[in-house]
Amino acid sequence: MPAITESPRIAVHGLGAMGLEIVRILHRRGADIVAGIVRPGSGKDGRDLGELAGVTGLALPARGDAGRALRETRPDIVVVAVSTYLDETQYEIFSTAIRSGANVITLAEEMLHPFATDNPLARDLDALARRHRVTVTGTGHQDAYWVNLIGVLAGSTHDLGSVTGRLSWNVDDFGRAVAEQQQVDSTTGEFTRRQAAAERPPTFGHYSLHALAEVLGLTPDGAVETAAEPVIARRDTPCGALGTTVARGRLLGRTDIDTLRTAQGVTLSISSQGSVYGDGESDFNEWRLADTSGKPTLHLRNSELDTAHTTCATLVNRIPDVIAARPGIVTVAELPQLRHRPF
Amino acid sequence: MPAITESPRIAVHGLGAMGLEIVRILHRRGADIVAGIVRPGSGKDGRDLGELAGVTGLALPARGDAGRALRETRPDIVVVAVSTYLDETQYEIFSTAIRSGANVITLAEEMLHPFATDNPLARDLDALARRHRVTVTGTGHQDAYWVNLIGVLAGSTHDLGSVTGRLSWNVDDFGRAVAEQQQVDSTTGEFTRRQAAAERPPTFGHYSLHALAEVLGLTPDGAVETAAEPVIARRDTPCGALGTTVARGRLLGRTDIDTLRTAQGVTLSISSQGSVYGDGESDFNEWRLADTSGKPTLHLRNSELDTAHTTCATLVNRIPDVIAARPGIVTVAELPQLRHRPF
Repeated sequence: MPAITESPRIAVHGLGAMGLEIVRILHRRGADIVAGIVRPGSGKDGRDLGELAGVTGLALPARGDAGRALRETRPDIVVVAVSTYLDETQYEIFSTAIRSGANVITLAEEMLHPFATDNPLARDLDALARRHRVTVTGTGHQDAYWVNLIGVLAGSTHDLGSVTGRLSWNVDDFGRAVAEQQQVDSTTGEFTRRQAAAERPPTFGHYSLHALAEVLGLTPDGAVETAAEPVIARRDTPCGALGTTVARGRLLGRTDIDTLRTAQGVTLSISSQGSVYGDGESDFNEWRLADTSGKPTLHLRNSELDTAHTTCATLVNRIPDVIAARPGIVTVAELPQLRHRPF
Repeated sequence: MPAITESPRIAVHGLGAMGLEIVRILHRRGADIVAGIVRPGSGKDGRDLGELAGVTGLALPARGDAGRALRETRPDIVVVAVSTYLDETQYEIFSTAIRSGANVITLAEEMLHPFATDNPLARDLDALARRHRVTVTGTGHQDAYWVNLIGVLAGSTHDLGSVTGRLSWNVDDFGRAVAEQQQVDSTTGEFTRRQAAAERPPTFGHYSLHALAEVLGLTPDGAVETAAEPVIARRDTPCGALGTTVARGRLLGRTDIDTLRTAQGVTLSISSQGSVYGDGESDFNEWRLADTSGKPTLHLRNSELDTAHTTCATLVNRIPDVIAARPGIVTVAELPQLRHRPF
C-alpha cells in the first residue's frame, strides 16, 4: 500500500497473450507503464515492449532481470501474468516484486483464494507482503463472473439454500497446454483412467468457490468435493489448439464439477466445461440460486463472452483497488465493488 | 449513523404489501422489530403487526402516531415503504424519523438518486440528515438489477460505449396505485393524450440511470430523454391489482424508455415495461454493453425474477450498510457491495 498516485507506475511481468493484452489496454488508457519483464534468456528478453504488444509510442526493452528492473523503475504495482499455481517459481516472482516495494496483481488462478488449500507458500507470501506493507491480489475473469456478480445477486434474496454455476469456455482460446490439461482428443478410457489416478491439481473452481463463500459471508465446511465428466464429440470437430481434428466419440474436453458445503448449510457448486467448440457455441456463465427448500429463486446468465478480454480488463480495472487495499494477501471478496474506470 | 448494534432496532413505516413482506423477512431473520407505523386513522391503526403480516410471535400494535412511536421505541433505522416520490408527505415521514435520531432506508424510487432532478426537498433532506448525523438511502430491486450488477459487469470490460437495459415487471405485484400509474385498462387514445400533456412525473428509470452513471464513474450530460410505448392487450386479460379484466385492445401497461448521455460519451438507457402479465410471462432484466464502436461486448440476463421479493430482500440486506454509512443522503452507488446476510 504505497502512496496512491493519480497515475500509478505499472510493471508487467509475463508477456504472453494475457500480459500483452494487458499492456495494450494500459497503453490505450495512457497508463504509466515503466517496465515489461520476461523470463531471463527468453526469446523476448531485450525486445521492444511496444513492438511485442503491437502498439506505438511505448519504447521500452523487455527485461529478464526482474529484481534490478523493479529497483530501477520503482513501480507502484506489478502485474503478474505467468502461470496458474502458487508454486516456488511464482512465489519467487511475487516476492521479488514485494521486496522492491511494489503491490502485486495477478491472473494466477490460485491467488483468487490462496488459502483455499493449505499451501504454506500462501502464509509466507501474506507475511512477506504485510512486512513490506504492500498488497497481493489475484483477479481475472472469475472476479466478476464467478464471484462478485453472484455476490450482488445473492444480496437481492432472503432465503439462500444453494448457488450453482454452469460455465463454458473454449479450449481453443487458450492454446496447447490447456487443451492437453482438458484431455482434448483423449478416449473415454483414458479419461476414466486419469479420474481414477489420485493426483490431480485443484481446478480453478476450487479457488473460486472459496472466494464465493467469502463474498457470501459463509464458512466452508470441509474440503471441496470434485467430480468430472467427459465432453464427447458427436461429430468430427477441428481443434485449433492441437492442430488436429477430434474424431467422433473422442473427447472435446471435460467438465469439472466442484462442490463446497458451508457451515450455514448453503451448498455452492461450479460446473466448468472447457472444451473445443463446434459451430455456434460461445462462452457463457449461468448461475442459479435456490432457497432452502430447493425452489429456484434467481437466475443470471452471461452469454457471448470474450473471456480473454474480460480477464485482462478486470485486472486493469482492479489496479486502483489493490493499490488502496490493506497490506497482505487481499482477495477480490474483500476489495470494494469492481467498477469500470473511465479513461 | 448511530452506534452500530449487532441486532439493530428496526421500525417499519408503511404496512402495505411491501412493508408487510419486509416485516415477514425481518421476523424470519429474528430481527428486532420495535414498531410498525401506518397513516393515522388508517384501518390498520391499532391492529396487531404479527396478525397483519401473518406471523406468530410479533405482538405489537400498528401505530398511527409516528413521532411519538419513534421517540418511545428509539429504532436505529426506520424502513419506509409508502410511496414513490419525494413529495411533502414523504418528506414529513422521513424527517420525523430523522428527528428521532434514526437512519432511514426506503423503497421510494425517487430516493434511489434524489439529486437526479432539481427537487429542492432532496437538498433539505440531505442537510437535515447531516445535522442529525443519520443516513438516508433509497434501495429496492433497482439497487441490484438496474445499478450494481451492471456496475460490476462494466468492471470487466475496457472499452465502454453504451449500456442498454430492457426490463419487465408485473403491475399486479404492486397494487392499484402502480396499476393506475402504468395506465392499465386505458385506451390508446388516453395513452397518447397523456404523452402529449406536458406534466409527467419522472419514471423509475430516470432515477436509476443517474445511480448507474454514478456507479460507472460517469458525469450526466444534460437531462434524461424520455419516450414511451403502450403495451396493448392481445386478448382479454385479468388484472388483479384493479380487480377487473382488461379488454383486448386496451392497455396492459406501458414501456418507458429513458436515455442519459454522459460527458464521457457513454450513453445509458433503460427500457422498462410495467404491465399486467398473461400466462407464462415472468419478470426479467436484460443488459447489453457495447464498445465505443457500437460492437456488443457483454450481456447479462436475469429471468424468472420475483421482483416483489427481491425488492424487499435487497432492502433488508442493505440495513447494515445504511446504518454504517456516512450521514446525509447516500445512494446505493456509494454503499459497499450489496451482499447476502446469512441468518
